Amino acid sequence: MRDVAAIGVGMTKWGELWDKSLRTIFVETALLAIDDAGVDRIDSMVVGCMSSGLFVGQEHLGSMLADYLGRIPIPAARVESACSSGGLALRQGFIEVASGISDIVLVAGVEKMTDVTGCEATYALGTAADQEYEGYHGLTFPGLYAMMALAHMHAYGTTREQLARVAVKNHDNGSKNPLAQFPFKVTVDAVVNSALVADPLRILDCSPITDGAAAVVLCPADMAKKMKKPAVRITGSGQATDTIALSSRQDITWLESTHLAARKALAMAGRKIEDLHLFEVHDCFTIAEIMITEALGIAERGRGGRAVEEGLTSLKGKFPVNPSGGLKAKGHPVGATGVAQAVEVIKQLRGEAGERQVKGAKRGLTQNMGGTGGSSVVHVFEAE
Amino acid sequence: MRDVAAIGVGMTKWGELWDKSLRTIFVETALLAIDDAGVDRIDSMVVGCMSSGLFVGQEHLGSMLADYLGRIPIPAARVESACSSGGLALRQGFIEVASGISDIVLVAGVEKMTDVTGCEATYALGTAADQEYEGYHGLTFPGLYAMMALAHMHAYGTTREQLARVAVKNHDNGSKNPLAQFPFKVTVDAVVNSALVADPLRILDCSPITDGAAAVVLCPADMAKKMKKPAVRITGSGQATDTIALSSRQDITWLESTHLAARKALAMAGRKIEDLHLFEVHDCFTIAEIMITEALGIAERGRGGRAVEEGLTSLKGKFPVNPSGGLKAKGHPVGATGVAQAVEVIKQLRGEAGERQVKGAKRGLTQNMGGTGGSSVVHVFEAE
Repeated sequence: MRDVAAIGVGMTKWGELWDKSLRTIFVETALLAIDDAGVDRIDSMVVGCMSSGLFVGQEHLGSMLADYLGRIPIPAARVESACSSGGLALRQGFIEVASGISDIVLVAGVEKMTDVTGCEATYALGTAADQEYEGYHGLTFPGLYAMMALAHMHAYGTTREQLARVAVKNHDNGSKNPLAQFPFKVTVDAVVNSALVADPLRILDCSPITDGAAAVVLCPADMAKKMKKPAVRITGSGQATDTIALSSRQDITWLESTHLAARKALAMAGRKIEDLHLFEVHDCFTIAEIMITEALGIAERGRGGRAVEEGLTSLKGKFPVNPSGGLKAKGHPVGATGVAQAVEVIKQLRGEAGERQVKGAKRGLTQNMGGTGGSSVVHVFEAE
Repeated sequence: MRDVAAIGVGMTKWGELWDKSLRTIFVETALLAIDDAGVDRIDSMVVGCMSSGLFVGQEHLGSMLADYLGRIPIPAARVESACSSGGLALRQGFIEVASGISDIVLVAGVEKMTDVTGCEATYALGTAADQEYEGYHGLTFPGLYAMMALAHMHAYGTTREQLARVAVKNHDNGSKNPLAQFPFKVTVDAVVNSALVADPLRILDCSPITDGAAAVVLCPADMAKKMKKPAVRITGSGQATDTIALSSRQDITWLESTHLAARKALAMAGRKIEDLHLFEVHDCFTIAEIMITEALGIAERGRGGRAVEEGLTSLKGKFPVNPSGGLKAKGHPVGATGVAQAVEVIKQLRGEAGERQVKGAKRGLTQNMGGTGGSSVVHVFEAE
């Protein structure tokens, strides 16, 4: 396998982009990444998108987006793994470059979620769960994560306030990210008194519905060296699955797919979790970030709540988690999230993260997750 | 890149499988392929599916299908390229094995299309076209291909009877395939007098709505050699895109994406079209097969209609096209079709195709297409 480097990143302002269509959002973002990479061609393209069929009535994104980007006849693939579609796109692009079949690969994630009603969006997101055994019986994602939160509180004494601390931290970070959908701070009081969605989760525990895209340009590390651009190597890629239905899990307070994907990615990179300087993880709900920090080994099992309370995961803590603001503040266009995590880590490792820069960051990790952890994708990035 | 071999195939009877769900159809088929390969593990899995979100309200197939196959926590990806999703899955699996990141990869395609009404199915299939500029203005796929057919008839004198000859040939072949949805013969008279769908295309010019799956197990060629199983090498893989909207094409009688994908796949294999002994191609409508034979170079440009009329593409012709019965007779569960084409070619090259066996077949080609040719994937297979 060839070594792989990321040589360009692109991201535009996320939010409710009612005046833009999926194709427009994608093209604007992809052009930024291609420009940043300074390349005059791309050889192939991989796009992560969860459910453009249900959100905008459009499949066949490979053809459509290559067409609108003006890049036909290049090969173009769309990949899907629910909310980890972006992470999967990164992994497929990584494998494509590593294999030698393509040199310069554009990896993008995109989702246009606000062209449907709230009910329709909830239905579309529910397709990440087991529709036959969960969705059609009335379960929604806030409901599923609420059960995980209650179980975690029961098993480990995780508190309502600790959940809120995740939102507070991520909005603190997000307030420093001009591309975030909600770039403002929130308080613990605001979170615990916000509207109840599914007990114990309140609206400020939940990531929002977002339109947005993110893009990264990959190429062989050798080729990157010859360019006079800042390059970041992808040194590890791990992916794992778990049962799609929460009811089939042995322990709903534990994210086994994240644990295994991280172990594989770190083994490939030859690194330990302590070697890394920042983490972009899948905080679709506040409880998710707590469980992810445990699955990654940042916090001991059951102590993810305390870790955030004690500042371990804050921007200046030992393990800064979600300097970008995370899904919570930055927004969560489901198929784009995994690629946006990579954009943030690459910017951080290039020292271009502005006010939210993690000082001296040389190695970082992304963790992107589908459903209630039915799939996880983890990547390790290292500055040259 | 490592050399890649196919060591197992699986396919079950296709049709309107009202008593089976998507996951059941997939698992039955995948188990056949794993059993045929004689392996005790798979390292990774790639599933092609066009629109499970719209057809059955389920995304996140990687997690769900790995789960129901009893193979979690292996990495599992779902890929989509409209009706070429199966071909794309094969390509991604090929790249994954070639790269060295995985050894034994299960490639599958699946679609469950009959859980919705005919109108809903037509809408879902329409997401392979440019919905904003084609679908929402009333165009359906029979309508789009009807325009291509009329243009081809106008430009090259292709006749109504030549279109019918494609259906007659493919049903002749399909009558020898016990897994086909419609394993019976039809006559030219029956085709030209069948119900009009979109002039000049009649119902017997169109591939049907089908439930079904197909699966192939891939591994490095070196590993295949050590097993005492018949192995077939994948020696070429090509993919290309074209404009998603028909109105953006320079010439709607020509399938440029198929032409380019085939050129790439043949170049990788170091073969010419004349070196191949059989072809499984994407005859979603009779006109499609005529245009594909031209794009592949089996027939001269404009002479695809004559080629079928003269028997060039029949089972005992110089270039046997669709010995399996094609999409026309075998059925067209959209995401599964590309993988089923590979299943047929591999069976043929192993000499296991029964009554429809192409004698002495040692090399074959699959051509799978999305939309009106917005994407094409071509693979070359060779017997060891």
